[in-house]
Amino acid sequence: MPASELRPQTPAAAQPPPPLQPSDYEREEEEFVWTQIKAEARRDAESEPALASFLYSTVLSHSSLARSLSFHLGNKLCSSTLLSTLLYDLFLSAFSSDHPLRAATVADLRAARARDPACVSFSHCLLNYKGFLACQAQRVAHKLWNQSRRPLALALQSRISDVFAVDIHPAAKIGKGVLFDHATGVVVGETAVIGNNVSILHHVTLGGTGKAGGDRHPKIGDGVLIGAGATILGNVKIGEGAKIGAGSVVLINVPPRTTAVGNPARLVGGKEKPKEHEEVPGESMDHTSFISEWSGYII
Amino acid sequence: MPASELRPQTPAAAQPPPPLQPSDYEREEEEFVWTQIKAEARRDAESEPALASFLYSTVLSHSSLARSLSFHLGNKLCSSTLLSTLLYDLFLSAFSSDHPLRAATVADLRAARARDPACVSFSHCLLNYKGFLACQAQRVAHKLWNQSRRPLALALQSRISDVFAVDIHPAAKIGKGVLFDHATGVVVGETAVIGNNVSILHHVTLGGTGKAGGDRHPKIGDGVLIGAGATILGNVKIGEGAKIGAGSVVLINVPPRTTAVGNPARLVGGKEKPKEHEEVPGESMDHTSFISEWSGYII
Amino acid sequence: MPASELRPQTPAAAQPPPPLQPSDYEREEEEFVWTQIKAEARRDAESEPALASFLYSTVLSHSSLARSLSFHLGNKLCSSTLLSTLLYDLFLSAFSSDHPLRAATVADLRAARARDPACVSFSHCLLNYKGFLACQAQRVAHKLWNQSRRPLALALQSRISDVFAVDIHPAAKIGKGVLFDHATGVVVGETAVIGNNVSILHHVTLGGTGKAGGDRHPKIGDGVLIGAGATILGNVKIGEGAKIGAGSVVLINVPPRTTAVGNPARLVGGKEKPKEHEEVPGESMDHTSFISEWSGYII
Amino acid sequence: MPASELRPQTPAAAQPPPPLQPSDYEREEEEFVWTQIKAEARRDAESEPALASFLYSTVLSHSSLARSLSFHLGNKLCSSTLLSTLLYDLFLSAFSSDHPLRAATVADLRAARARDPACVSFSHCLLNYKGFLACQAQRVAHKLWNQSRRPLALALQSRISDVFAVDIHPAAKIGKGVLFDHATGVVVGETAVIGNNVSILHHVTLGGTGKAGGDRHPKIGDGVLIGAGATILGNVKIGEGAKIGAGSVVLINVPPRTTAVGNPARLVGGKEKPKEHEEVPGESMDHTSFISEWSGYII
Amino acid sequence: MPASELRPQTPAAAQPPPPLQPSDYEREEEEFVWTQIKAEARRDAESEPALASFLYSTVLSHSSLARSLSFHLGNKLCSSTLLSTLLYDLFLSAFSSDHPLRAATVADLRAARARDPACVSFSHCLLNYKGFLACQAQRVAHKLWNQSRRPLALALQSRISDVFAVDIHPAAKIGKGVLFDHATGVVVGETAVIGNNVSILHHVTLGGTGKAGGDRHPKIGDGVLIGAGATILGNVKIGEGAKIGAGSVVLINVPPRTTAVGNPARLVGGKEKPKEHEEVPGESMDHTSFISEWSGYII
Amino acid sequence: MPASELRPQTPAAAQPPPPLQPSDYEREEEEFVWTQIKAEARRDAESEPALASFLYSTVLSHSSLARSLSFHLGNKLCSSTLLSTLLYDLFLSAFSSDHPLRAATVADLRAARARDPACVSFSHCLLNYKGFLACQAQRVAHKLWNQSRRPLALALQSRISDVFAVDIHPAAKIGKGVLFDHATGVVVGETAVIGNNVSILHHVTLGGTGKAGGDRHPKIGDGVLIGAGATILGNVKIGEGAKIGAGSVVLINVPPRTTAVGNPARLVGGKEKPKEHEEVPGESMDHTSFISEWSGYII
Repeated sequence: MPASELRPQTPAAAQPPPPLQPSDYEREEEEFVWTQIKAEARRDAESEPALASFLYSTVLSHSSLARSLSFHLGNKLCSSTLLSTLLYDLFLSAFSSDHPLRAATVADLRAARARDPACVSFSHCLLNYKGFLACQAQRVAHKLWNQSRRPLALALQSRISDVFAVDIHPAAKIGKGVLFDHATGVVVGETAVIGNNVSILHHVTLGGTGKAGGDRHPKIGDGVLIGAGATILGNVKIGEGAKIGAGSVVLINVPPRTTAVGNPARLVGGKEKPKEHEEVPGESMDHTSFISEWSGYII
Repeated sequence: MPASELRPQTPAAAQPPPPLQPSDYEREEEEFVWTQIKAEARRDAESEPALASFLYSTVLSHSSLARSLSFHLGNKLCSSTLLSTLLYDLFLSAFSSDHPLRAATVADLRAARARDPACVSFSHCLLNYKGFLACQAQRVAHKLWNQSRRPLALALQSRISDVFAVDIHPAAKIGKGVLFDHATGVVVGETAVIGNNVSILHHVTLGGTGKAGGDRHPKIGDGVLIGAGATILGNVKIGEGAKIGAGSVVLINVPPRTTAVGNPARLVGGKEKPKEHEEVPGESMDHTSFISEWSGYII
Repeated sequence: MPASELRPQTPAAAQPPPPLQPSDYEREEEEFVWTQIKAEARRDAESEPALASFLYSTVLSHSSLARSLSFHLGNKLCSSTLLSTLLYDLFLSAFSSDHPLRAATVADLRAARARDPACVSFSHCLLNYKGFLACQAQRVAHKLWNQSRRPLALALQSRISDVFAVDIHPAAKIGKGVLFDHATGVVVGETAVIGNNVSILHHVTLGGTGKAGGDRHPKIGDGVLIGAGATILGNVKIGEGAKIGAGSVVLINVPPRTTAVGNPARLVGGKEKPKEHEEVPGESMDHTSFISEWSGYII
Repeated sequence: MPASELRPQTPAAAQPPPPLQPSDYEREEEEFVWTQIKAEARRDAESEPALASFLYSTVLSHSSLARSLSFHLGNKLCSSTLLSTLLYDLFLSAFSSDHPLRAATVADLRAARARDPACVSFSHCLLNYKGFLACQAQRVAHKLWNQSRRPLALALQSRISDVFAVDIHPAAKIGKGVLFDHATGVVVGETAVIGNNVSILHHVTLGGTGKAGGDRHPKIGDGVLIGAGATILGNVKIGEGAKIGAGSVVLINVPPRTTAVGNPARLVGGKEKPKEHEEVPGESMDHTSFISEWSGYII
Repeated sequence: MPASELRPQTPAAAQPPPPLQPSDYEREEEEFVWTQIKAEARRDAESEPALASFLYSTVLSHSSLARSLSFHLGNKLCSSTLLSTLLYDLFLSAFSSDHPLRAATVADLRAARARDPACVSFSHCLLNYKGFLACQAQRVAHKLWNQSRRPLALALQSRISDVFAVDIHPAAKIGKGVLFDHATGVVVGETAVIGNNVSILHHVTLGGTGKAGGDRHPKIGDGVLIGAGATILGNVKIGEGAKIGAGSVVLINVPPRTTAVGNPARLVGGKEKPKEHEEVPGESMDHTSFISEWSGYII
Repeated sequence: MPASELRPQTPAAAQPPPPLQPSDYEREEEEFVWTQIKAEARRDAESEPALASFLYSTVLSHSSLARSLSFHLGNKLCSSTLLSTLLYDLFLSAFSSDHPLRAATVADLRAARARDPACVSFSHCLLNYKGFLACQAQRVAHKLWNQSRRPLALALQSRISDVFAVDIHPAAKIGKGVLFDHATGVVVGETAVIGNNVSILHHVTLGGTGKAGGDRHPKIGDGVLIGAGATILGNVKIGEGAKIGAGSVVLINVPPRTTAVGNPARLVGGKEKPKEHEEVPGESMDHTSFISEWSGYII
């Protein structure tokens, strides 16, 4: 999340629109990842006939990542009253026409592959990661929200919450290269902002403060790592490259490159002079060393 | 939760039956809320054709809130072995014949609308809130349980847990005007009692103490607020208007209008003379100020 | 979990294969439990016609526990792109040919019945317990993983995570007589090992340490009890008969028959001379007394 | 078909309404047939576990014939855009409130049982005869048509035609005790009238004369038998107790108790003095003797 | 069917491609019909809430006739192994890119409306006429056949035959403004050709002559009317504006504007000097007068 | 049909059981055809990605023809109250254990390939021919009927009639190498017998004579060809190698190698000295030359 996100936000309408065409880099990235996914799916279909039908219908019969993802999301999120064809159409229309959406998808696939040792391939993430899928669907809901198609955006949120147990408000802003690992139980509120290259584990809450409306949810800076079960409440800033320990309950601002742990969370090294780390934890994914360290402080 | 709930419970059979007819107030409330829901759905159907089919099938084609809700629950909770028609019939029969059930539904809709700033309309809650839907379905399961139709009640519990990731035992007693916000991961045990006007966030557990049967789950008084991820274990009493902080682990009685936070939870202000607050936290929904305060105590 | 599990593991290929035939004890156990299940289902079908169709299709029309369970899992876990017939075939082939798999199923049914006071019958567990069902499906995924059918194993994991909100890596090793109670939100990583007669509550995480591969998840000894919401991270050993308190965050080895509680978790009685208990907590299921005791230590 | 049907029809609105309550005879008939159906279904469920789930869901879980039939029709005729719950509701509302509809159903069940030697039981007809099911659904469509709910009536006609390959216009009037045997390919036009105790084989057309509107389809008297593949075109009268040979093409009035055969159809015995028979062919179901006889005439 | 169709056919590849853009007339026609359909659907949705969901999902939520039709066909023809999203995509891609396909659809809607007195609106035909729907789907299958995507074309034929009981080989050529009335049981062989403005009733067969391949099915000229149950076998020519009586079995060429009736069919007026009629029977739809006339000849 | 079939039938129980094992010829035939089917499906999957998922799920993921066919039939014939898994199990159990059933399937595939010029491959028949599929399902229903599992056999008949519009009583006996071409509208009664190498077109009825039970349906000899729309009524014998013209209505015995045509049907060449042909029409499939010839006789 660039620093600007942490300043009072410019209304969406006032922001410069994205360039009309994807950059060469984006195009190459998308092409590369899609080529990989097809190669992986082809290899898996050959080695495992029982899965081949699934792989052909979800990946190999499609001419682009946008189509494959739209098909998969449409089939996952449909219900007897929200048909797969309708959802497929909705997703396809969004992903086809909005290259920054696709670039975010590609960055998320890269993130899962780079940071999660259990992620054995891009196609594994595309097909099986509920956090990845929930995030892509939320981005489309977010687009609908910004187009003032709010009832539809909220209906999507509800389907995502039912199907994936991931509940992200369509108004929440999510950056690129985000990894929702395992993802079950993630709750992200309406005015939350999540920066780029953030990693968020399951059962994480970015929650509000009460029944008043307004800007009331956390702002998560670029490169932050939030451990499993952490609860962050209120319009607090988690600075770039900060770490939040598993199970922490955070109600305070956390400065960049520092670590907060515990219930209630405190800064490792102390409030006055918190210890700073060098690496970007959202990318290095070191979940535990800092907690051990902190435990050392207090035990 | 009236004090009587906290005393050894009279068996259901011995309790006075509800009046045969809804009161004028109940009738008007139901009429008002249903009229609102239809107006909202009509407005949304007009502005969003992609959602109109969903809104007509779930709301606008129905002649009453009971029918709309039964249809929606039947379609959400059905499976290939428990057909939607069977569940629809079951829900419709319960809601049609039992006006206190309907009054509780109306009170829950009111609660969501009043307390959750993200709840933009009654229909948004009716259609999209898994906590609301799980709670209504549990009330029907509870009715079946009390009619000694226990295998069916347990099958419903299982469907609710699969579909909504909300696991409330059918024997648990739930008051009116209850808000399960986000709701994913809520677990409520067999002998738990939840009073009126309670607000419970996601990942909250009202759990038991072990493998012995008997009365072994928490009793939550009226107006209580339980923060995200709180775990309350055993037959403890959480007094009227108490607050339980997010992420707390509570194994003690919490007196009325006091606050418990932390793992293990302690009373803010201390065990001997806990600080009392004025407002009803289940309604004011102040999730954070008290924790900050408490943090101040211990950091 | 036998001690051998805690030693560097022999590759699966090198382990002695299970005996070709089930022992008499296993056969009798399976027969006994299946006979009970059918009797329970028949009783319930008679008393509750609305459930009879469900009970006949899932239990009473089948000639064995393996068929009933395969049918039920196939119908629960199928999707529009992974058909029930395919999954049924897959499960049936696994359960029919692998008697240790069936013996583990039977032991799990026994465990639920013995330890969970809300479990009123074997059929209640078989039909309605998502933790039980997720565990049986994971065992089949584990078998596929060991047969190098990894894409299929991962697809199963994804379906289990979508449907039950239980996310167990197919490579994780799970013993017999395991109870996943409520189960929503359980996450178990790739190199985790869970011993025999373990009880694990909902929202429990057995997680990794970061983005490096290798042996990085907890090893849970036989008879351990892990309370709701506990997070155990890294390649730590939780010794036989240990208890982990609800909501704890554990990053340390926990010696046999000791108790760890809190965030971060500490041993009850202190690191140097932790208090030892006599009972097997995974079986006695005492979730709270030790925490109260510990609370006493620190408050 | 009473003679009055053959006279210029009184508009539906002008006809005397049916008595408000079923007669004792109707009540007893319905009770008798429903009791039989349940006994048959129970016997079959006991002898054939693989069918028990089907029999419980369609018959044994229901408290009345109206509910069982509505459930079965709702599940047979539903589609992804016309949900089973909606259709169930529609059918149940019609059958519950309209006892002549139910009496016609009972008479049709009696007719199949009495006239079709392959009909082994009432439940066999109720569950498996597409002609019976299409006819019951058409009666409901007819009721909707008369209530000026024509788009819905036509949508039902379309579903019946898709599912059963039986295409009967909702405006067509059908008497009681009618047997559509095999039924595939039956087409009945908008202004056709079918009397009581008529038997109609598969591939029978009661068609119109061209593109002009108005009264343009056949009127079939009581007790008529129409053989397989017969085509009757135009506003012709087939008199009471007449027979139409298989494969005939009929464009003429056929007097009561006479036989028409051939393509184009001629009266057996000649136009001037056709041979009259004694029995009611719609009930005796003699499909062939008369044709042989006729063949004798012309070969 | 222009005379050229009756000459040895030029291979598809050699035919001049259709113009790249629809003509103004086609555009206006499509626009007019689509506007009508939406107005009809809106009116029906308002008057019949039980059908509104269906009408919104199939018509009112779509931005074009091509989308509405593709959605409806995709949902009608899908199966558990050929998903609606896949079929929707296939249909949409064909209809969007091929304006002559859309023009044929519009002409067929016009034909049903003009010739069938039971066709009360364009939307009635679009939504409910299996003959119309089967014909549109066949045209897409025909396009696939010509693109050498034969396995897919044959799979579509199979679905159309299962769902609509209409079995038209994808290689058959069908003109514009064709009405398949009722349609159940229609069979059209591989080398059949059907001209423009033809009307074909149900159970009509355009069949082959035996097991030899090659050009072996009927060629039906423009404006022909084929009555219910007629069977036309072999590579015979049914001249422009000819009529074939219901139930006829035709193995001979039928000259333009003449009538063939009977089994085996003969020309009305005699082989040598058949009677000629003035009107275009495929449009006037006079099914019966000529047969009566003919009956007069032979009785 | 061997002559013995035409004699009073020995009860099934008294017939010699089939040999326990398939002959080498049967084994090789099955192997050959299955190998072909897989090769065809693989070729089609490669050339048509949109169909690959279908081909993998129905053919390429299966290890035998019996499994592939059982899967396909289970998915085609299932309904919301008769699940695909149940039907799959039923079909698989029949085909796996009964090699004569499989040999008949193979002979039918051979017949379609040899006789129908539109049948481009074995897999085309297996996947797309409703006549083939209905016949295989009927054979399983027949087996159930003979095992006194009549309610299940009748439920299957009903599903086959709904899904394929092919209505064959489960008691009817059908030989090997039978081709039901197009098949829509075929009706075959309870006591009908169909010999080997018979070809039957669509809309053919083998019907009964009235409401009396007993042996009342046609017996069709080996090698018979029955044209489209022919109706054969009563316990008549159609001798080996006879032909029945399209649209004929047959109520008489037809001697071997003779031809019957017309309504009512007469023997070509006259009753006394009918013309005999040399070829086996069920195999040569000459549908028309004989009718033309006959037409010559009578026009």
